[in-house]
Amino acid sequence: MTEYDTSLPGIRQVQNYIKDKQEVELKLVTDDLIVGKILWQDADSLCLVDHYNQQTLVWRQALVFLKPKA
Amino acid sequence: MTEYDTSLPGIRQVQNYIKDKQEVELKLVTDDLIVGKILWQDADSLCLVDHYNQQTLVWRQALVFLKPKA
Amino acid sequence: MTEYDTSLPGIRQVQNYIKDKQEVELKLVTDDLIVGKILWQDADSLCLVDHYNQQTLVWRQALVFLKPKA
Amino acid sequence: MTEYDTSLPGIRQVQNYIKDKQEVELKLVTDDLIVGKILWQDADSLCLVDHYNQQTLVWRQALVFLKPKA
Amino acid sequence: MTEYDTSLPGIRQVQNYIKDKQEVELKLVTDDLIVGKILWQDADSLCLVDHYNQQTLVWRQALVFLKPKA
Amino acid sequence: MTEYDTSLPGIRQVQNYIKDKQEVELKLVTDDLIVGKILWQDADSLCLVDHYNQQTLVWRQALVFLKPKA
Repeated sequence: MTEYDTSLPGIRQVQNYIKDKQEVELKLVTDDLIVGKILWQDADSLCLVDHYNQQTLVWRQALVFLKPKA
Repeated sequence: MTEYDTSLPGIRQVQNYIKDKQEVELKLVTDDLIVGKILWQDADSLCLVDHYNQQTLVWRQALVFLKPKA
Repeated sequence: MTEYDTSLPGIRQVQNYIKDKQEVELKLVTDDLIVGKILWQDADSLCLVDHYNQQTLVWRQALVFLKPKA
Repeated sequence: MTEYDTSLPGIRQVQNYIKDKQEVELKLVTDDLIVGKILWQDADSLCLVDHYNQQTLVWRQALVFLKPKA
Repeated sequence: MTEYDTSLPGIRQVQNYIKDKQEVELKLVTDDLIVGKILWQDADSLCLVDHYNQQTLVWRQALVFLKPKA
Repeated sequence: MTEYDTSLPGIRQVQNYIKDKQEVELKLVTDDLIVGKILWQDADSLCLVDHYNQQTLVWRQALVFLKPKA
């Protein structure tokens, strides 16, 4: 993985989901699918919050794909 | 992984699929097979769009193989 | 992964769980879920302690997600 | 992984399979076994072609082992 | 992963298990659990020895967690 | 992973197995267990040969553990 570069389209798309409080589905290497809103991202991790206001810290190394909740 | 080098044959092949709006099958480490057209690629991720016009952001670390849809 | 940077939000969130002796659930790439309190973190690993006071050393490369125990 | 170094024995062995149009079996992290001939390799990926002349782009990060087809 | 730094708490904890000839359980990405004593560690690998005095070389990239045998 | 350093104990142990034509068991991330003798190693890969004299090129990123065949 390259350095954390906030001008990359992928990083910006995540940033837009944060700004729009878009509900997303996040697939992880363990095949877990986390549903929630992204609160923030940094170089190593993302933080999601679900309907019960519980926060989950997800490490970037475990990310597979992300899409807006249908 | 080396730096993101757009002159690499593999990167160029993806770029051709983007230009030709080629429908592709993308296999991921979770064994998911995503079918769609690639919208763009950057150093960290690829973005695909499916028949329902839904976008999926896929991280490069999760990529296994890619082929044109038969 | 970038260098270990203690100013990152993700690293600081773990640091807060350590300070607050918060019980957490830690999901690993093997799908194991470890429940306990985090004793310390360093650039390569985290150390958790469970109810029986047994310590587990977890390597960062195996981390998937972390949340406070419900 | 080190830089892509074409003098390494492993890289050269793949290069020989390419030159000899040797049919190979390529095992991937998803447990998929791809059978075909290698068309080219670069620092990030390999390209295989099967009996139906379909090309598959395989990312190096997904490679497990390679052997000549028995 | 950062450079191999013997002053890190995680590396030192492994070093203590080596010195104390502590029997440990080592979980790997394949879900294998290896039981034995650690003989040595280096930047890339660990070496364990079991009850039958058989040695196993384990690569760091495959490590998930480590704990003293209960 | 650090640079390929032939003075590391782990690299030297593999080198000894090569020199002694020791039959080994090599566990991979796919849970495959390859049995054979190691012919050579380089920074990216290992090459094993089995009883039928067939060669298998194994990428280092897929290595889990190695032990002498019992």
